[in-house]
Amino acid sequence: MDGQVIKLTRGTPPTSTFPTGKIAECASAVLAQHGDEVLQYGPSRGFLPLREELARETNTKADQVILGGGSLNLLDLFIRLVVKPRDWVFVEKPTYDRPLILLRRAGARVRGLPMEEDGLNTRYLTQRLEEGVRPVFLYVIPDFQNPSGTVLALEKRHRIIELARQYDFWIVEDLPYRKLRYRGDEVLSFLEMAPDRVLQMSSFSKLISPGLRVGHLIVPEPLAGPLAKIAEETTINASYLNQAIVYEFIERGWLEPQIEELKVTYQPLLDATLASLEDHMGDLATWHRPDGGFFVGTMLNAPVDAGVLQQKAHEAGLLLTDGRTFFPDGDGDRFVRLPFCALSEREIDEGIAGLAGVVRSLG
Amino acid sequence: MDGQVIKLTRGTPPTSTFPTGKIAECASAVLAQHGDEVLQYGPSRGFLPLREELARETNTKADQVILGGGSLNLLDLFIRLVVKPRDWVFVEKPTYDRPLILLRRAGARVRGLPMEEDGLNTRYLTQRLEEGVRPVFLYVIPDFQNPSGTVLALEKRHRIIELARQYDFWIVEDLPYRKLRYRGDEVLSFLEMAPDRVLQMSSFSKLISPGLRVGHLIVPEPLAGPLAKIAEETTINASYLNQAIVYEFIERGWLEPQIEELKVTYQPLLDATLASLEDHMGDLATWHRPDGGFFVGTMLNAPVDAGVLQQKAHEAGLLLTDGRTFFPDGDGDRFVRLPFCALSEREIDEGIAGLAGVVRSLG
Repeated sequence: MDGQVIKLTRGTPPTSTFPTGKIAECASAVLAQHGDEVLQYGPSRGFLPLREELARETNTKADQVILGGGSLNLLDLFIRLVVKPRDWVFVEKPTYDRPLILLRRAGARVRGLPMEEDGLNTRYLTQRLEEGVRPVFLYVIPDFQNPSGTVLALEKRHRIIELARQYDFWIVEDLPYRKLRYRGDEVLSFLEMAPDRVLQMSSFSKLISPGLRVGHLIVPEPLAGPLAKIAEETTINASYLNQAIVYEFIERGWLEPQIEELKVTYQPLLDATLASLEDHMGDLATWHRPDGGFFVGTMLNAPVDAGVLQQKAHEAGLLLTDGRTFFPDGDGDRFVRLPFCALSEREIDEGIAGLAGVVRSLG
Repeated sequence: MDGQVIKLTRGTPPTSTFPTGKIAECASAVLAQHGDEVLQYGPSRGFLPLREELARETNTKADQVILGGGSLNLLDLFIRLVVKPRDWVFVEKPTYDRPLILLRRAGARVRGLPMEEDGLNTRYLTQRLEEGVRPVFLYVIPDFQNPSGTVLALEKRHRIIELARQYDFWIVEDLPYRKLRYRGDEVLSFLEMAPDRVLQMSSFSKLISPGLRVGHLIVPEPLAGPLAKIAEETTINASYLNQAIVYEFIERGWLEPQIEELKVTYQPLLDATLASLEDHMGDLATWHRPDGGFFVGTMLNAPVDAGVLQQKAHEAGLLLTDGRTFFPDGDGDRFVRLPFCALSEREIDEGIAGLAGVVRSLG
């Protein structure tokens, strides 16, 4: 470890990928051309040209697109709009930890749907619905799921939409990693299949830069007005300057090559992670083999206490996220998320070898 | 009116005051020097140099300073942190309309404290406290209050602090207009007098540009950790890029001259407003004579229905904000807020003459 700490904690892109010069050019252009607009208050839905661009891309209307200071913030507004204390919300298990915090704060009851190699267990979902549990919405990360790395199979997406119509709940799909596919074919998004039932959230944090804080939520028309209203009441509007920078970046044709560069950077890191797992953890854990995104989720074979694991890993120079934070209901001790995008291949191999040593020492 | 609509609605600064070229220079410098930091995720409290600058200015610690996407957003987080349904919160009456919406959403019971020429009625406040009403906090805009324009007298500030200590409530002072004083002397802020009891919110929206969405909240130390946590849970962090632009603007010595320019721009508009009120409304309304800020609040002498007034004004080419939105408890029909900063002297005179005509026609 050479005294260096290896961070296997959050899904943060490496600063080396930031197109800083291009962002500066976009900022200058935007202030020169749209200074009066981007420096003033504006309607809470956000900078219209970017909303129109996202609407074109998703075959929706600009009025359905709401921009915010990151997509998490918009999810929070949606939760505040539709979730009352003791309402049910379904999530994948494991899932992204931050929405769990928002849901807990709203007083929601959260049910985790177990993950399989091809995404959430739809039989389990069906059973819960048949038992009479009625969620307000299902929160799902269909592509390169955080934290497991899996992609939800097309037939399961169809089944979930069927259930959403039958039992009247919203599907909130979160797509921050969708465009970071390193191999294989894209699966239809929920929004493409059922625009009347689906809220699609995503952001430019993983594609351009997290610091710009530009996320978006595309919602069915009846929800657009109420969401724009609660957004205005809460923040007046998010920064048009940042939104216009993103728009300008896209307008200049810089987003596609940026994404291609990210793929070239990240794919070898994913492959290194999978190879190191084979080398060091083959007898200690199981994992899916993701085709994209930021994470490989691993499940240790032997029982372990997540707190102890975290502590021992720390002593060995490894920072881990507590696996239990990804599980809505107290599970997750054996779950370890491996974010690989901000590490070097050497750090990945040393990190996973170190993790194997720690797990063995606890076995 | 020449067919032109005169907007007497929100307190929006005129785009002509935006230092757009300087902001562009700051953006370029910030991205060149701090690109990696401002484009990455960061701690939720915000960009440290700006927090240090604000801490120096207010004699607090940087850890107590939390930056957000506008100050309203931070107030919302504070409300979510400390207010439970049916808790009491005290406000001035009239007060800024947006906090009332946030408080209602939190289920708070809101008591309005009547405004006098030198700010809120402290005898009324004392009586409510003696009756046993226990607010979680008092929200107050001590300088050039929105919407009335008044400044809270120093002795009243002392009295309020005394009461806050005795009855154990927080004072939240909102200071967006404090630095826009066109005459007279500054009064000590609540924070200067009682840093252990006071949360100070303010922003650069009225001093540099609203579109940057940079606001701040300075809080007593015990609240800083919990507020930073709820901020992280809700938005991860607000945009460091925007915060760094503001910091750079201050660093370069551009803020003070910018404020001086704003004063030179706004003072004649305030004077024109007061003169036009004398000319046209002397027998129809009363108002205080503010020494700064964005607003003159007027109270019509004769009873009127705010909805009818708004409608008739609209027919006469005047957009008004419904006076009732500034009152927590259904009052405010006779209240008209006159924001003068984004109007020309001619628009001000025509607007107020028009308003007088409408009021007379309803009398």
